[in-house]
Amino acid sequence: MSLVIAGTMAFDAIETPFGKTDKIIGGSATYAAWSASHFTQPIKQISIIGGDFPQDEIDALQNKGVEFDGVEVVKDEKSFFWSGKYHMDMNTRDTLVTDLNVLAKFDPKMPDSYQNCEFLMLGNLMPSLQRQIINQLKVRPKLIIMDTMNFWMDIAMDDLKETLTLVDLLMVNDGEARQLSGEYSLVKAAQKIMTMGPKYVIIKKGEHGALLFHGKHVFFAPALPLEDVFDPTGAGDTFAGGFIGHLAHTKDLSFENMKTAIIIGSAMASFVVEKFGTQRLKEINNQDIMTRLNQFVDLVNFDIDIV
Amino acid sequence: MSLVIAGTMAFDAIETPFGKTDKIIGGSATYAAWSASHFTQPIKQISIIGGDFPQDEIDALQNKGVEFDGVEVVKDEKSFFWSGKYHMDMNTRDTLVTDLNVLAKFDPKMPDSYQNCEFLMLGNLMPSLQRQIINQLKVRPKLIIMDTMNFWMDIAMDDLKETLTLVDLLMVNDGEARQLSGEYSLVKAAQKIMTMGPKYVIIKKGEHGALLFHGKHVFFAPALPLEDVFDPTGAGDTFAGGFIGHLAHTKDLSFENMKTAIIIGSAMASFVVEKFGTQRLKEINNQDIMTRLNQFVDLVNFDIDIV
Repeated sequence: MSLVIAGTMAFDAIETPFGKTDKIIGGSATYAAWSASHFTQPIKQISIIGGDFPQDEIDALQNKGVEFDGVEVVKDEKSFFWSGKYHMDMNTRDTLVTDLNVLAKFDPKMPDSYQNCEFLMLGNLMPSLQRQIINQLKVRPKLIIMDTMNFWMDIAMDDLKETLTLVDLLMVNDGEARQLSGEYSLVKAAQKIMTMGPKYVIIKKGEHGALLFHGKHVFFAPALPLEDVFDPTGAGDTFAGGFIGHLAHTKDLSFENMKTAIIIGSAMASFVVEKFGTQRLKEINNQDIMTRLNQFVDLVNFDIDIV
Repeated sequence: MSLVIAGTMAFDAIETPFGKTDKIIGGSATYAAWSASHFTQPIKQISIIGGDFPQDEIDALQNKGVEFDGVEVVKDEKSFFWSGKYHMDMNTRDTLVTDLNVLAKFDPKMPDSYQNCEFLMLGNLMPSLQRQIINQLKVRPKLIIMDTMNFWMDIAMDDLKETLTLVDLLMVNDGEARQLSGEYSLVKAAQKIMTMGPKYVIIKKGEHGALLFHGKHVFFAPALPLEDVFDPTGAGDTFAGGFIGHLAHTKDLSFENMKTAIIIGSAMASFVVEKFGTQRLKEINNQDIMTRLNQFVDLVNFDIDIV
């Protein structure tokens, strides 16, 4: 049950209506790995970091079963840095700084020890790099999940569409689904995206939950209503990590099990937004997760034996 | 199991990205009554109409058990008229015309035949008129539900807050919940509103579903993902009608049954948006409703027996 996660490992500086941070650890692959590690180990990480990436953060991830054979370390350079500021609604944000640093020369390599992985999570990266990772696999995984963003739709749409033909599941937010498909209705958008390669589409709507589409099936996972969303950074990556972590753990790709996986992803995302950065993902244990999952059951379960 | 519904009965002219109508039948009490009539009869209507309100529309409602003793007819004047245009997202709209007409002199009277009603739905009206209706009741109903809107918060907040102390359940949209409470977080907003009178708060989020709060309990009902929302007019009133219609039918005010009621309200709302005006509410039968309810079960049901 091997899981490969590719994406960024980075520093973030975040400002929200609740406060601001100096440089803290972030990156799509960091959040996804922390989240998935609660469900499945080992996790085979593919990323690139500078010499400034703290050893204790690497140690902490390795203690949770995250392998670094596929993480390139460029000693004399800096890790990718992103800084952003969230608006009051927490669904929109302004990017203040993007320093690519080592990411500018990312040339992902699939170590031999990563071959024959069964699950592949491609975090948000340049689509050609995502494709480069897929193309290095000697055996196709059971499930390839791709995350992406509007930025690549703006500057590399053809590339993105080519990578899309190689994956099983695309994960995007509502605006991105609309941009990619040219359809306003999310149902129509998902149907169109499913003609472009993926058999599954997950549309993330932030505080409004997420939709899973497969053929004519649709499933809706709510977001937990929280008193405060403290920092939404990494919520989508954490969601993805919980989703694929559960699938890798159970090895069950039925639509029913994907429903469970998307609820688990939502539960993990509900934790990560409670504090800055990855802090909550480091603190929580299985009991916390079970308690949270039961809150989701209470939140949406109902009886229909009427009319 | 008597249900009183108060609100407007009116003409609407609607423009959406999918088309536009001439004057068609609308009004909060019209939508609510059509919706509730699928679950409970009779429905004791309180409203005011002009001589121009079509007799065949009155006949159609009466055939569904809607009583008109509390509907004042002002023969020589015109019914309330509203015209609006929806934006592409269907969650925002511009009001083009508001002709109060008979509504300007609405002085709601509770007929003797309406006394001892068990359920009271106060559709969106001037808060002092909603209070006037409550104050005419000799016996307090089991459940009083109040709908309102931002307009009254802008011009009659004190009045609205006074009426709020008299009701059991407030139904508002997310923006209105924020305006009324001064809280951005919907969880905090609901908690604050529950200190202002109502024991229950429903926050409607349009295409993003609805939240039901009661004490520390929270329940989320999704909106059905539709290929197209053709015309959202009356969706909130239809939701309210289905909700209170089910409660009046079952006479069960447990939180569990309120969950079922809010799903039924959501199902009814998912029908009404499929065509202009009340048309779908007139067409559908019990079988259609059961089929739709099962779609809601498929949409949100999941198993958690993992981790």
